[in-house]
Amino acid sequence: MGLKFRPVDASFYDLFAQSASHLTTGASLLAEMLAEGSDRDDVARRMREAEHEADETTHAIVRRVNSTFVTPFDREDIYSLASGLDDIMDMMDEVVDLVLLYGVQELPAGFDKLVEVIQECARITAEAMPRLQSMKDLDEYWIEVNRLENAGDKTYRRTLASLFDGRYEALEVLKLKDIVESLEAAIDCFERVANIVEQIAVKES
Amino acid sequence: MGLKFRPVDASFYDLFAQSASHLTTGASLLAEMLAEGSDRDDVARRMREAEHEADETTHAIVRRVNSTFVTPFDREDIYSLASGLDDIMDMMDEVVDLVLLYGVQELPAGFDKLVEVIQECARITAEAMPRLQSMKDLDEYWIEVNRLENAGDKTYRRTLASLFDGRYEALEVLKLKDIVESLEAAIDCFERVANIVEQIAVKES
Amino acid sequence: MGLKFRPVDASFYDLFAQSASHLTTGASLLAEMLAEGSDRDDVARRMREAEHEADETTHAIVRRVNSTFVTPFDREDIYSLASGLDDIMDMMDEVVDLVLLYGVQELPAGFDKLVEVIQECARITAEAMPRLQSMKDLDEYWIEVNRLENAGDKTYRRTLASLFDGRYEALEVLKLKDIVESLEAAIDCFERVANIVEQIAVKES
Repeated sequence: MGLKFRPVDASFYDLFAQSASHLTTGASLLAEMLAEGSDRDDVARRMREAEHEADETTHAIVRRVNSTFVTPFDREDIYSLASGLDDIMDMMDEVVDLVLLYGVQELPAGFDKLVEVIQECARITAEAMPRLQSMKDLDEYWIEVNRLENAGDKTYRRTLASLFDGRYEALEVLKLKDIVESLEAAIDCFERVANIVEQIAVKES
Repeated sequence: MGLKFRPVDASFYDLFAQSASHLTTGASLLAEMLAEGSDRDDVARRMREAEHEADETTHAIVRRVNSTFVTPFDREDIYSLASGLDDIMDMMDEVVDLVLLYGVQELPAGFDKLVEVIQECARITAEAMPRLQSMKDLDEYWIEVNRLENAGDKTYRRTLASLFDGRYEALEVLKLKDIVESLEAAIDCFERVANIVEQIAVKES
Repeated sequence: MGLKFRPVDASFYDLFAQSASHLTTGASLLAEMLAEGSDRDDVARRMREAEHEADETTHAIVRRVNSTFVTPFDREDIYSLASGLDDIMDMMDEVVDLVLLYGVQELPAGFDKLVEVIQECARITAEAMPRLQSMKDLDEYWIEVNRLENAGDKTYRRTLASLFDGRYEALEVLKLKDIVESLEAAIDCFERVANIVEQIAVKES
C-alpha cells in the first residue's frame, strides 16, 4: 500500500469527500424534482446552485493538483476521479433540467426506482471517498455500485419498454425516453467513478 | 519488443482469448435473434448466459491483475482491454434485450448487414487476442477493424435514414432506431478495443 | 516545464496544428450546410474530403509516435489528443451527413447558434495547438472552451425543448433531435480535447 509512508497533502481526500457529498445533495434534489406536487422551478434553481458548488470543488482539486509537488496518487488519476464525480453531477442536473424544460406532467413507474438507485449510489460513493486515504474496504464499494448498476439497467430497460405500451403519444415517449436515458446515464457515471477508484486501488496495491 | 525477456504470467493471454471467444458466441446469438422465425426468448436466455460467462472472464482478469506482481503489459492497459471487451458483450446483450422487449416484428434491411459487420469484428478480434503474446501482426487487425467500422458507419446512416421513408409509424421508428443505434455502438466498442490494442503495441514497441 | 531541454521532434506540433486547422475548415462547411440555399450535396462532398484529410493527419501523428524515440510528451497523450481532434471532425461530418440523409428542410433557430459555438471552439483550438510547444497561455484556451461548452449546453437544451412546441410532427422532431444532439456532441468533443490539453499541461508543469 505504501501510502502512509509518503508525505502527502491529506486535503485531497477532504476535497473528494466534499465532491461526493454534493452528489448526495444532487440525488435528493432529483428525488424532490420527480416527486408529485414539487415546486419544480425552485428545485431546479437549487440544483443549479448545487451544480455550481460541485464545479467549485472540482476546480479546487485541479488547482491543488497543479500546485502540489507530491500527490497521494497519480495526477492523472486524481484528475479522472475529479471529472468523473463532476460528470455525475452534470448528469443529475441534466435530468432536473429536462423535467422542467419538457414540462412533463406524470412520470411513469420505474423512474422513481431509478432515482432510488441513484440515491443509493450517491450515498455509498460519499461513504467510500474518505476511505481513499487508507485504501481499505473500497472493494465492497465498487462491487456494490456494479451490482446497483446491473439492477438499474434491468429497471431501465423495462421502463423503456413500458413507454411503448400504448399509453403515450410519440412526442411524449420522446420526452420521457430522454429523461429515463439521462437517469440511466447518471447511474453509468457512478459506475465509471467506481471503476476509476478500482483502478487507483489496483495501482496502489 | 522486449516482452519475451520478462518473466510473465502467460495465462493473461489465455484469458483475453477466452474473453474474445465469448464475443464470437455473442455475435452468433445476435445473428440468430435477428433471423426470421427464431425462438427469441430462448436466444435471449442463452445471451444472458453468455454475457454472464463473459463477466466471469473479466473478473478473472481483474483478480489476476490484483494478485500478479509482473504483468505482461501495464496494469491499466490490461484493465482497459478487459473492460473494453466486456463493453462489447454488454452492447450485444443490449441489442438482444431491446429486440425482445420492444417486440419488434420485421427488421428492415441494413440491420442484418450491421450484424454481419459485428460477426466479422468478433471473428478477427478473437483471432488477434492470442497474438498479443508475440505482439506480431496486430496492425492488420486494428486496421481491418477500423475499415469495418467505417463501412459499418455508412450502412448505419443509410439504415437510419431508411427508417424515415414513410413505411413506419413514429413509435416504430423510435424502437428500430434504438436497436440500430445499439448495433452501431457495438461496432464502435470493437473499434475502441482495437485502439486499446494499438496503444498497447505502441507502448511496447 | 523542462520541454525546451529535451531533444524533441518539433513537427509533432505542426501536425497538431494541421489537425486543428482541418477543424476550422469543417466548422465552416457545417455553417455552409445549415445556411439557406446551400448546395448540400456539394457541401457534403467537400466535408467528406476534409474529413479524409483530417484522417491522414491523424495517421501521420500515429506513425510518427511509432517511429520516434523521444516524443514531446507522453505517447499515450499524443495518441489521446490526436484521436480527440479526429473525433471532433467525425462528429461535424456526422451532422453534415444527417442533414443530407434526413433531407431536413427548415432548421429551427438555435441550430445556427450551436454552429457559431462550434466555429468559435474550432478557431480557439486551432490557435491553441501551436502553443503546445511553449506550453504557455494554454489555460485561457481550455477555460474558454469550457465556458463555450456551458453556454452551448444551455442553448442546446432550449433548442431541444423548442422542438416539442407543437410546430413539428413526431418524425420531424426525431430527425431534428438527432441533428441537434450531434451538434452538441461536437461541442462536447471540443471540451474533451481541451481537457486532454489541460491534463498534458498538468503533467508537464
